[in-house]
Amino acid sequence: MKIQGKHYHTIWVDADDPTIIQVIDQRKLPFVFETFAMRSADDAFFAIKEMVVRGAPLIGVTAAYGMYLALLQLKYENWEEDLNRVAEYLKSSRPTAVNLAFAVDEMLAFILANKDDAELNEKALAKAGELKQQEIEFSDKIGEYGLELIEAIYKKKGSTVNILTHCNAGWLACIDWGTATAPIYKAHLKGIPVHVWVDETRPRNQGARLTAYELGEQGVPHTVIPDNAGGHLMQHGMVDMVIVGSDRTTVTGDVANKIGTYLKALAAHDNNVPFYVALPSSTFDWEMNDGVKEIPIEQRAGGEVAEIEGWHDEQIKSVRLIPENSEVANYGFDVTPARLVSGLISERGICKADKQSILKMYPEKINR
Amino acid sequence: MKIQGKHYHTIWVDADDPTIIQVIDQRKLPFVFETFAMRSADDAFFAIKEMVVRGAPLIGVTAAYGMYLALLQLKYENWEEDLNRVAEYLKSSRPTAVNLAFAVDEMLAFILANKDDAELNEKALAKAGELKQQEIEFSDKIGEYGLELIEAIYKKKGSTVNILTHCNAGWLACIDWGTATAPIYKAHLKGIPVHVWVDETRPRNQGARLTAYELGEQGVPHTVIPDNAGGHLMQHGMVDMVIVGSDRTTVTGDVANKIGTYLKALAAHDNNVPFYVALPSSTFDWEMNDGVKEIPIEQRAGGEVAEIEGWHDEQIKSVRLIPENSEVANYGFDVTPARLVSGLISERGICKADKQSILKMYPEKINR
Repeated sequence: MKIQGKHYHTIWVDADDPTIIQVIDQRKLPFVFETFAMRSADDAFFAIKEMVVRGAPLIGVTAAYGMYLALLQLKYENWEEDLNRVAEYLKSSRPTAVNLAFAVDEMLAFILANKDDAELNEKALAKAGELKQQEIEFSDKIGEYGLELIEAIYKKKGSTVNILTHCNAGWLACIDWGTATAPIYKAHLKGIPVHVWVDETRPRNQGARLTAYELGEQGVPHTVIPDNAGGHLMQHGMVDMVIVGSDRTTVTGDVANKIGTYLKALAAHDNNVPFYVALPSSTFDWEMNDGVKEIPIEQRAGGEVAEIEGWHDEQIKSVRLIPENSEVANYGFDVTPARLVSGLISERGICKADKQSILKMYPEKINR
Repeated sequence: MKIQGKHYHTIWVDADDPTIIQVIDQRKLPFVFETFAMRSADDAFFAIKEMVVRGAPLIGVTAAYGMYLALLQLKYENWEEDLNRVAEYLKSSRPTAVNLAFAVDEMLAFILANKDDAELNEKALAKAGELKQQEIEFSDKIGEYGLELIEAIYKKKGSTVNILTHCNAGWLACIDWGTATAPIYKAHLKGIPVHVWVDETRPRNQGARLTAYELGEQGVPHTVIPDNAGGHLMQHGMVDMVIVGSDRTTVTGDVANKIGTYLKALAAHDNNVPFYVALPSSTFDWEMNDGVKEIPIEQRAGGEVAEIEGWHDEQIKSVRLIPENSEVANYGFDVTPARLVSGLISERGICKADKQSILKMYPEKINR
């Protein structure tokens, strides 16, 4: 998608040096646009852990390139063991998103299967590029399927379609298009009037900082709201649908997404507002059946709640929000039970959030 | 309650000059403790509008003193008309809390009824003082009744009672004790182990700034959380009860409270967590039957969402949170339907949130 009118992906191979992977440094948006160069698996781990990059699909692709960068540095005997260790290390960077494990395991299997190939480095780079390309295609297709939902509301309503989203499941969370935002961009490009209620998404404000930024750069009308506001808007008919992303979706349709998503799903359910989750198949966890009980929920540093970053005097500054001696807790995600989800939008189409419907869409997973 | 070990009310008559009313300047807490001197009805209007003081009971008492301050300045003929205008002016400072109108009307009626009394000024001051004293007694009794609920949970559970609250319905929102916090302080004083999950309460962070501060000053264990976290905590059995305040409660039991309260009520309902609303009778609106449709919801300046204040370099600084060109919306309150409320805790006891139960507790309102 576009930044200042120029087309970008969130991650790319450096044009001059294929041993460097560049990413947009999302810690500094929307205030400063900078790139971050990754030269090693350590850099990839840092980028994921510190949220230079974030969003389930982008985390997966970053880790895939991280495996490639690791390979470049492993030149000695028995490197397979080390590569296995790197794989575990990268997977440990963030526990909730399943795409991460998926991408790392894909790369590990590919590298080990081609370990005697003279062009292994180039092939591993190409493999990571394939995973990247696949995520772009997934987003593109999610956009096309989700567009149908927005179009149907528009045809019925005849005026601007108001869509609420939480966190950033935009192109900045992916490579291009996004997941939750892909249908919105497709609708906007098609001339359907859309307006997005952007949950600011405390504590890290990915909505206020990233979703608002990327929607603005594509010219999509939007309004930033505190996370507390969505229920009130829904009670008063000001939200036509909710679309969010997912960091892990069980085969039964339970959805782990940014903390607070569950509260919006409850409000949508209470007000008969359709609640959709957009996700590429890389986000499904085919092993899990009970999201609330089984999906690991990351706890992050309390400083992310106690302090907040913003723009002051032409600089990014951090201010303290709470009394010196107060404790804080910082859970990264929550789980929305399938019963509150109107449907899942994946690259294969739209289905109900239940095991039967999901497996019907992914029949190759039935005999796992 | 205590600040730095010294007992305070939120509002008091200046010890040296009875034409000055002092309040704690809540815009600066927890970072700086300062008082704000009110010398006129304009000062009282400013204090309420700009949230030098906030919280339904305190707003009411501040407006009552504002009527007294107005009286001091109205020395000419036909001052009754002007006083009526001041009353409307004060009532317009914030639209959602009904205590404001209640207190202003009480003062207006009192002053007009005693207009020929030579000691009218002194009597008006005493009348405002009575309203203040009444709020203290209301809070004290709410505390005693609510304490029974906490004690019952403690007896059953045998370990720390975890209570979630939203915004600040603490003593800083009242005169002393608070509404939602009164039972918590009473339990703490009685030696019942309590721990409070404090919703930070965006956009103005009254939870992070005020509730955390006042709980800390009384030594009550607490943890500040983003507003997004409560649903997750309830899903995992980490919340034993929710207690919030109210800015206006219909005679049918619908509750207007700080934006986001409704989302917590939905989560409590979904997880069988008791959801109580603590309120003095001055918060009831005896004329309204449908909260969602009828209670006016204040919209405040967008800057409260776009920028946030915190502590940086030993100063209160404000940083910008969103892109330059993004729109923002700022609804101050939402309405929690009575069906989601486990019970109301008032100065007369605990009752169900329905018209019959409320009127049974306030039989003098039946024939209105």
